[in-house]
Amino acid sequence: MGTTVIPGGLHRPFDPSAFRWEGVGETPYKDREGRRRGMSWQGLNRFTLATPETLAGTFEQRYFEIAPAGFSSLEKHAHVHLVVVLRGRGRALIGDRVVDLAPFDLVQTPSWAPHRWVHAGDAEPFGFLCTVDGDRDRPSEVDEAEWDALGADPHTAALVF
Amino acid sequence: MGTTVIPGGLHRPFDPSAFRWEGVGETPYKDREGRRRGMSWQGLNRFTLATPETLAGTFEQRYFEIAPAGFSSLEKHAHVHLVVVLRGRGRALIGDRVVDLAPFDLVQTPSWAPHRWVHAGDAEPFGFLCTVDGDRDRPSEVDEAEWDALGADPHTAALVF
Repeated sequence: MGTTVIPGGLHRPFDPSAFRWEGVGETPYKDREGRRRGMSWQGLNRFTLATPETLAGTFEQRYFEIAPAGFSSLEKHAHVHLVVVLRGRGRALIGDRVVDLAPFDLVQTPSWAPHRWVHAGDAEPFGFLCTVDGDRDRPSEVDEAEWDALGADPHTAALVF
Repeated sequence: MGTTVIPGGLHRPFDPSAFRWEGVGETPYKDREGRRRGMSWQGLNRFTLATPETLAGTFEQRYFEIAPAGFSSLEKHAHVHLVVVLRGRGRALIGDRVVDLAPFDLVQTPSWAPHRWVHAGDAEPFGFLCTVDGDRDRPSEVDEAEWDALGADPHTAALVF
């Protein structure tokens, strides 16, 4: 076991008991932005698995884990997410839809669709891979019209806070 | 259940009993190239989860599954692979190393490193996500010097055929 350094590459064994990769430390999710509309978050851990700085590619892959009662910020941006759930149960607001998520479910978030990931289910964390372009724009909060519309829609209101 | 079309995005539920995503059909792995050095393959299924044509990103994500006794072609290319194992046990030749792989293990293949994925273990297929740049070069066979060196090395010889 142990991280095997392949010349120019890498094998990081996964430890199922800890549900972590050897040698992959946590990186901050983002600065607290709780005072901007919907940008608060809670109980979220972020692990960067690969970036254009660590592999000769244009993309970045992260693993996010959300604890019970946790949630990501409600945000939007031009870049897309490609998500594959690895563990637990979750729920996502994407655009004006809410989808329930289980292991290995696949989700794409469209450009500029407001989105938020929340834990659902029991005590197991909700964990998912998220692949993005390495070169991408920064998230911004939803605008006031989106905030009002999503908050007024009974399908989405519970995820708008 | 069913595939939820989010405007500009997509939720594809995963069916654990079939170990497949709804609406994701198999795509051919590659043309038979068995007469080129090391380029034969066997028992390999490929599923394309996302490409730059299906999402506004530069990357492509595929799911490969290798049946018992199966293997991918031995090949090399400039582009890199980022692999996350989803099921079963496998083994990989990467450069001049052989690594054993289990669920959620993470592997990067370096540019131009010869590599081959093979099934290992019991009757469960060996399945893994593989992310690549959408814009990438085509694989080529290893050259004669690589073939000879890998075939002469007792650590790698079993994967050189």
